Amino acid sequence: MSADEPGEELTSLVERSDLTGVRLWLAEHPPYEIADELSRMDSALAMIPFRLLDKDRELEVFEELDPVHQHEILAGLRGTAFSELLEEMDPDDRARLIGEAPAKIAARALAGLSPAERRMTAALLGYPEGSVGRVMTPETVVLHRDLTVGRALEVVRAEGAAAETVYTLPVVDDGRRLAGTVRLSDLVVSDDTAEIKDIVDILVPRVRATEPAEDAARLIQEANLVALPVVDSEERFLGLLTFDDALELIEEADSEDIARQSGASPVAGHYVAASVVRLARARSVWLLLLIVAATLTVNVMQAFEATIEQVTALALFVPMLTGTGGNVGSQSATAIVRALAVGEVRVRDLPGTAWKEARVGLLLGLMLACIALVIGTALVGRDIAVVVAASVIVICTWAAVIGSSMPLLARRVGVDPAVVSAPLVSTLVDATGLLIYFTIARTILGI
Amino acid sequence: MSADEPGEELTSLVERSDLTGVRLWLAEHPPYEIADELSRMDSALAMIPFRLLDKDRELEVFEELDPVHQHEILAGLRGTAFSELLEEMDPDDRARLIGEAPAKIAARALAGLSPAERRMTAALLGYPEGSVGRVMTPETVVLHRDLTVGRALEVVRAEGAAAETVYTLPVVDDGRRLAGTVRLSDLVVSDDTAEIKDIVDILVPRVRATEPAEDAARLIQEANLVALPVVDSEERFLGLLTFDDALELIEEADSEDIARQSGASPVAGHYVAASVVRLARARSVWLLLLIVAATLTVNVMQAFEATIEQVTALALFVPMLTGTGGNVGSQSATAIVRALAVGEVRVRDLPGTAWKEARVGLLLGLMLACIALVIGTALVGRDIAVVVAASVIVICTWAAVIGSSMPLLARRVGVDPAVVSAPLVSTLVDATGLLIYFTIARTILGI
Repeated sequence: MSADEPGEELTSLVERSDLTGVRLWLAEHPPYEIADELSRMDSALAMIPFRLLDKDRELEVFEELDPVHQHEILAGLRGTAFSELLEEMDPDDRARLIGEAPAKIAARALAGLSPAERRMTAALLGYPEGSVGRVMTPETVVLHRDLTVGRALEVVRAEGAAAETVYTLPVVDDGRRLAGTVRLSDLVVSDDTAEIKDIVDILVPRVRATEPAEDAARLIQEANLVALPVVDSEERFLGLLTFDDALELIEEADSEDIARQSGASPVAGHYVAASVVRLARARSVWLLLLIVAATLTVNVMQAFEATIEQVTALALFVPMLTGTGGNVGSQSATAIVRALAVGEVRVRDLPGTAWKEARVGLLLGLMLACIALVIGTALVGRDIAVVVAASVIVICTWAAVIGSSMPLLARRVGVDPAVVSAPLVSTLVDATGLLIYFTIARTILGI
Repeated sequence: MSADEPGEELTSLVERSDLTGVRLWLAEHPPYEIADELSRMDSALAMIPFRLLDKDRELEVFEELDPVHQHEILAGLRGTAFSELLEEMDPDDRARLIGEAPAKIAARALAGLSPAERRMTAALLGYPEGSVGRVMTPETVVLHRDLTVGRALEVVRAEGAAAETVYTLPVVDDGRRLAGTVRLSDLVVSDDTAEIKDIVDILVPRVRATEPAEDAARLIQEANLVALPVVDSEERFLGLLTFDDALELIEEADSEDIARQSGASPVAGHYVAASVVRLARARSVWLLLLIVAATLTVNVMQAFEATIEQVTALALFVPMLTGTGGNVGSQSATAIVRALAVGEVRVRDLPGTAWKEARVGLLLGLMLACIALVIGTALVGRDIAVVVAASVIVICTWAAVIGSSMPLLARRVGVDPAVVSAPLVSTLVDATGLLIYFTIARTILGI
């Protein structure tokens, strides 16, 4: 947790070409810290410590890197070093790497694998992107339901070393159909003569290989599982999604949601390693759409240009009103997007949610209107202050309804609700809020 | 995953007082789904199915609920039902429940425990809120480093049932100082005569009980651990933080960060169960601060009132400019807050980050200025369009610098960077952006 100081050292050791120092540093740090430091370095520099790792640790460090950095490392390796590294990887990590790699690296990678490993990888790559099938591990120890505990433990001992996890053991019947799972801890504490079919947990949840990986990961979390069995459409066992892959999927999904909430595409890989152009590209699409959408606000302002010319003071409160409406709308949208992501709200809750948020917005609007009335009266006088306060109430209520409904509508039409970013809601609320403001102004001031 | 339809049923079964139906529904669903449905129900109604669960499942369902709902359930229980439930809970879950409970429930809960369980709970409660000590489990199977594998497996068999996890087994020396950990899978596949001291992993990370729980949870994720050993200041073993608690901590922390990013306090518990007043209260503090801060924008507009009166067309672009500046600033802030949370950026990276974001902002500004120039020229003519385009460039650059620096400055002075919400950045960028806009307007238009 205090990796701060030694971290700086690796880069400077490499820059000073102090290979003894680098070797020492590598020996003293666990793989995930080494991977973290490599991610911060320029890829040409990162190759130096990477090549100094011994075989086993090289693989461990490599598996800790994210695909972007893995591709960089692979591009710097040649011949046997390249294929040996891939051959040793877990099939699910390898499938992910190859699935996301530039075509040239992917082809080279698949070609270099042994037939068995190539078959396993191809099977995983057969599932759609983002599905559980892509990230599950087929390397498990499968138990038949007719075994005794003693025999099952022997199977675990014999096959366990090659499996990615042995904590959750899938139990199958004759047709390889999943009966349930047994935990290794239950095997260890059970009598050797007990039968697997008597201790198998048949209520354990399972998912189809084609289901979204993120949903499966959240299920692991909800049900507190070490691993979740994955089956095909005929309930035949295919593989396990392990909790550590689930953790990674959830962190990735949350990072994505967080980026989307601010109107940016998620940038894969380390922030420090991302180039200025890549960061700008990830953010540019939405900004372009939003500035075009913001033309609406110019149109609304133009429609009321005469009103503004007559009472310039009205213009003074435009940024405050659009800002407040945007804030209330963003809060509602963010709350609903998160509630959807963790499964607390469902699409059919839309009417109830909109009604609830309308009341929240009204309550917040009433409160903020009092402040607006005081500020407005102090700065420009009572008439305009009343207009501003009344507008705050209507805009807040409206913003909360829009902000909460849009993510649910997005989900209903099959769009990721996180795309209903706070900026999108703000921009829409800006234009409609101005319409509300100037209409109220004309009515109250009689112009 | 398709819990949608049966979900609706439980509520209606309870409302129709169809107790046989409720019993059947409960038998067919795993604990985490039952807990999810209970969370959606009114607490008085939720008591009905809860009391119908048998003892073992009652505990499992109860542990799946979050503290808010646990308190509601506890408040509805009396006498032995109350203390039996608490006595059976995992010590870390119980400590968390009591730590967050209203004083009355907390006192009643502690009083009802057996001396052994009370001692364990009090020990956990002795650690500061939000620390690993509060959430670790002291119920583990501890191995001495001089044991053989065969003997160690006997210890696991004898003590395993009472432990929360046996997948990670802490290994200690004579002074109960942590030597490292052994995985249950390694024990199972090793020779019975092998010695623990030869297979113990001494490089495994460990944390102090006083460190923040969120950091420890992220360490579990980074290092792919099933459980992380927790030690005191003398490296003596205290307990384990398990991956399922880590998953929960991470989801909670991400939910909090996401809520804060929109300028709301996180609301504990289920969205559907949260009242309108509670939701409004969670969002009101920041909105109040922000509307007061937005007075700055009114001041700036007032300072340039004469300019606006002279060239009303300038006012038309105010919402578009504040909106765009806010969007760019929020994107930067969101990216940095997330990079800080997952450990990709550190406080000392501030100058590098600000410089990088300045270039990202400039690039985005140049791109958006082209659009603004076209829109501006079409709607109001070239002179004003040039002013708007020039302002877009400066505002975007400025917004990116502000948005990226504020979270890092917050962290440096010890404030949670997530508090630097997108709305806060937007509001600050609004006022300064207007200053930039009108200054550029005066200069270019010569007024």
